[in-house]
Amino acid sequence: MELIENTTCFGGKNAVYRHRSDACGCDMTFGIYLPPQAETTSVPVLWYLSGLTCTHENAMSKAGLQQYAAKRGLALVFPDTSPRGEDVADDEAYDLGQGAGFYVNATQRPWAPHFRMYDYVTRELYALVCGAFPVTEKQGITGHSMGGHGALTLAIQNPEQFRSVSAFAPITNPTKSDWGRKQLAAYIGTDETMWRDYDASRLLRSKGWQQDILVDQGGEDQFLDLLRPQELVEAAKDVSVPLSYRAHSGYNHSYYFVASFAEEHVNWHADRLRGPAA
Amino acid sequence: MELIENTTCFGGKNAVYRHRSDACGCDMTFGIYLPPQAETTSVPVLWYLSGLTCTHENAMSKAGLQQYAAKRGLALVFPDTSPRGEDVADDEAYDLGQGAGFYVNATQRPWAPHFRMYDYVTRELYALVCGAFPVTEKQGITGHSMGGHGALTLAIQNPEQFRSVSAFAPITNPTKSDWGRKQLAAYIGTDETMWRDYDASRLLRSKGWQQDILVDQGGEDQFLDLLRPQELVEAAKDVSVPLSYRAHSGYNHSYYFVASFAEEHVNWHADRLRGPAA
Repeated sequence: MELIENTTCFGGKNAVYRHRSDACGCDMTFGIYLPPQAETTSVPVLWYLSGLTCTHENAMSKAGLQQYAAKRGLALVFPDTSPRGEDVADDEAYDLGQGAGFYVNATQRPWAPHFRMYDYVTRELYALVCGAFPVTEKQGITGHSMGGHGALTLAIQNPEQFRSVSAFAPITNPTKSDWGRKQLAAYIGTDETMWRDYDASRLLRSKGWQQDILVDQGGEDQFLDLLRPQELVEAAKDVSVPLSYRAHSGYNHSYYFVASFAEEHVNWHADRLRGPAA
Repeated sequence: MELIENTTCFGGKNAVYRHRSDACGCDMTFGIYLPPQAETTSVPVLWYLSGLTCTHENAMSKAGLQQYAAKRGLALVFPDTSPRGEDVADDEAYDLGQGAGFYVNATQRPWAPHFRMYDYVTRELYALVCGAFPVTEKQGITGHSMGGHGALTLAIQNPEQFRSVSAFAPITNPTKSDWGRKQLAAYIGTDETMWRDYDASRLLRSKGWQQDILVDQGGEDQFLDLLRPQELVEAAKDVSVPLSYRAHSGYNHSYYFVASFAEEHVNWHADRLRGPAA
């Protein structure tokens, strides 16, 4: 694991590492923020999964999570959104291939065998982070857009691993959306029965969730018809999972929206991973 | 003036405008943040000048100033760092030409007549902002790196216009630095007597400053030898201007450093432009 950036940020340490990934068969880059509390004790982790076109870097520099993580004593991990490199398949479209991994394990060429972001995040990077940094096994997960889809689907499939989940403007029903059907067909194949494990609304109906869920959504989000948040709201209602869904008038899909509600998400996870603030 | 972006951010309005600039002889783009208080009253303005390679956008999305401006009722204005366009001269180096205006009025070809960022910020954009938005004439100015140089030199030269000034890791003595001598020679010419009005440390000695000054500096800043903050510290001491100079161990030159101290700068300006927080 190679340290490629490291600086102080809100009293904690903001670092970027590159490492060889077995899951993805290429070098992968991720960011991690360790709050000041991590100098003397192990801290819970909040995973942040990013959206289409992003690397590990966008949310680190734009979402403004570190200041709140510093106050509440959470580490933050920022994975990349896909495998990358000259040997890795790509597509001219912004929403397929590199930068658009959708947090699935691809089974179809040319995306298999590199595009295994599900295994990469939940198994390989999880183990690496737990082994290399002063963190506890109490972990929460959040994300934005495609990363909100990732957070919800990874959490619901791994409730023993993720104790808390929230999302910013998530893709909630990709099997019914143009942000989903195209990518699932490409990565998983055209047999739609194989897509079920990667659709948060369907997963919530089939597997439930033992905790509550927080979702924020911009009211002027330019991609609202692709995100389909009402599907998640209805699924949560049908299976009696407490979902706090908040639509915010005036906000679009940008990081200005994420940053505006970052404090509440960090505090929400900290309350569940560490207990209420003193 | 054309509105090209507009969204809600921390309850206020975050917008980007393009307009024809007479000062620069080209279209210019700037960002503005209006806090929630501006819906019902006029608010003071804090100008933020950015560093080398930046546009209006970097600080808007990375410095995290809006949340504090929303709390304290300040508007924020984010000018670009140079004229731009196919008709505007440029250089292959990152530190000369487009993205590197240094907040001066160029007198030398090929930079004259477009590179007039001093007049653009202090005259043209100032008048445009005061005329088009609900702001008061109470204005403060801050900036980062080259933009910290801009904030200090524009304020000291225009004390009736800027009532408060601070800076993040500013270039404080460009007439003695490779971040300065190259650009001043190119833009202003090789007669160094013409450079004095664009060197914060020399200006402070010659013109003084009737208020106090806040400067934050990262202790691990990779460009420390180009910034020369001790020159400003000594100048302030020699002319008895109260300068709060704070060196912060572990921080580098990045926006992670700016964001970490953004709250204190916004509050510092708000205290001087609006009075202490209730």
